[in-house]
Amino acid sequence: MNYPHGGDTLSYREAYGRDPIDFSANLNPLGIPPAVQEAVRRSASLCAAYPDPFCRRLRRALAAHESVPEEAVLLGNGAADLIFRLAYALRPARALLVSPTFSEYEAALSQVGCACSFFRLREEDGFHLTRDILFHIADGYPLVFLCSPNNPTGQPVGRELLLEILDACEKHGTLLAVDECFVDFLDEPEAYTMKPFLREHPRLMLFGAFTKLYAMAGLRLGWCLSSDRALLDAMERAAQPWSVSTPAQEAGLAALGEEEFVRRSRALIREQREWLRVNLQSLGMTVYGSRANYLFFRSPVPELGERLKEEGILLRSCASYRALGPDYYRAAVRLPHENEALVAAMERCLNGKEK
Amino acid sequence: MNYPHGGDTLSYREAYGRDPIDFSANLNPLGIPPAVQEAVRRSASLCAAYPDPFCRRLRRALAAHESVPEEAVLLGNGAADLIFRLAYALRPARALLVSPTFSEYEAALSQVGCACSFFRLREEDGFHLTRDILFHIADGYPLVFLCSPNNPTGQPVGRELLLEILDACEKHGTLLAVDECFVDFLDEPEAYTMKPFLREHPRLMLFGAFTKLYAMAGLRLGWCLSSDRALLDAMERAAQPWSVSTPAQEAGLAALGEEEFVRRSRALIREQREWLRVNLQSLGMTVYGSRANYLFFRSPVPELGERLKEEGILLRSCASYRALGPDYYRAAVRLPHENEALVAAMERCLNGKEK
Repeated sequence: MNYPHGGDTLSYREAYGRDPIDFSANLNPLGIPPAVQEAVRRSASLCAAYPDPFCRRLRRALAAHESVPEEAVLLGNGAADLIFRLAYALRPARALLVSPTFSEYEAALSQVGCACSFFRLREEDGFHLTRDILFHIADGYPLVFLCSPNNPTGQPVGRELLLEILDACEKHGTLLAVDECFVDFLDEPEAYTMKPFLREHPRLMLFGAFTKLYAMAGLRLGWCLSSDRALLDAMERAAQPWSVSTPAQEAGLAALGEEEFVRRSRALIREQREWLRVNLQSLGMTVYGSRANYLFFRSPVPELGERLKEEGILLRSCASYRALGPDYYRAAVRLPHENEALVAAMERCLNGKEK
Repeated sequence: MNYPHGGDTLSYREAYGRDPIDFSANLNPLGIPPAVQEAVRRSASLCAAYPDPFCRRLRRALAAHESVPEEAVLLGNGAADLIFRLAYALRPARALLVSPTFSEYEAALSQVGCACSFFRLREEDGFHLTRDILFHIADGYPLVFLCSPNNPTGQPVGRELLLEILDACEKHGTLLAVDECFVDFLDEPEAYTMKPFLREHPRLMLFGAFTKLYAMAGLRLGWCLSSDRALLDAMERAAQPWSVSTPAQEAGLAALGEEEFVRRSRALIREQREWLRVNLQSLGMTVYGSRANYLFFRSPVPELGERLKEEGILLRSCASYRALGPDYYRAAVRLPHENEALVAAMERCLNGKEK
């Protein structure tokens, strides 16, 4: 069982006999909103029927919420489901990705024999994406897959650069896919999301999810947006018709009403991200300026993650990412007392065993 | 929106402004067991975390329930999810299917460019699968996909014939996939399921689901069984790691305890299937001897389905199946008062407008 992702609290529980504070999954620390939980409970009595294969009510509501036409929306069993469907529908021979980034793009593309090239984000650039990628796009890949803010680095790609990239992609007949699953945690999502450019740019595809913002990872609900309806239709055909469960559809409808929750989450993340950054830095960590709901850092002690497990804390080791070693970690920004517990535990780990 | 399957009650509601009695989806008429609903409600508070990607607890419980080793089990987002994964993992150039049968086998296989050949079930054989299929298997297909009991005809393939087919498949290096999603509705499931042959026959793969037996279609939970672990691993890699939601995993665990419910369901189906068969026949329908939880029949009036909609009843038109015309229908066996309502409405339809 090879599982490189965060959030594997079950394995922790089996090994340590208790629940960890889970900093390894990038979820909203406020947890799943009560109204969303209530929607799941209410959905129980509806589950005897097949779910609506077209997610009609949810699709209408999401389109209105995201200010895009209904036809531009495809819902899936989490964004990861749709990433695989894109691979199967497009079957690109080559694709350009960055490294490090979320590993499921490569995992999905490798299923169709796609040769992935990696534009390496450099530590000396603070892991920012730079204009140098434009030279590589000129090679004419069928697909360029970005993540903004990027996972695990937390850096968003600025709009100006993304528009240059989009322009270059269009010149070369390239589909530009941008995973925006973390965009709503940014202080100014509207300054970063590429949604306003969908209508005029059919070679742009965006991915999003309820997973992180509403902390509903267990329900599996994501979407993709594109004005290339033929491509969305092909992605629809690339999997079964009933991929989005009834609880997920009901939960999604409830989540879209949670505007105050989202504002509160964003404010909490902003404040706690800064607090955590300062404290990790003062413990000797090199923190790479994430603007999302997680921090990406390098530890002077590579075995930090293993030591923290003993303290009841789960970090995301970034050793499994391309181009990163075992001293790189990702930590979700959590509630104040949890972040304090993380810092205190780190202090004990670092002082207890000096390098 | 091209949707050939049953269970589209939402479209009916939008057209007729009320809920139909839904005979178009093949689900247990007793509905979702209370303990399963309760498990969904309880799961609401667990949905903030990612689901266990390996479904460890459920996999262990299902393996024990089905008397197979844990390693032989792969869970998915409904059996349909796993049918697509098999297509993507195996990528057969050719496959042998029967017609008519569940359309998602062909839909999934067409995604990988597989050329499907169809062994046509003949009306004069009562739509039974016959030994003639053995001649076709000798053509050496990479994959033979059967459904037992078959959807929409309701006929199971006898064990003796299935063993002959399996033997022929092994001789030709063919994978034999058998969809057993309806096997538990048979009077004697254990006389038909091929589970006892899994261990010795790595070229045998079985599909099953919680969907129909526990009427939990909205939750999406299915499985496949095989002793070819490398193939199951490839199917695992063919989609995202988190395809089975937390509510589905919890509901599945609860469902496995519902043995009395299953016995009761089987007895009800047996009794009502016979009642419905006799009554449909006396109305002039040709009923083809289904032994599952649905009846497959031919109506002397092709527009029967449309007329019944006016009466608040949804049948499954079989016009979308290969080799069947608009006068073929499938009706789920439902509760006594619902079955009586179906027969009464049919009577009105037939007498109101004579052919």
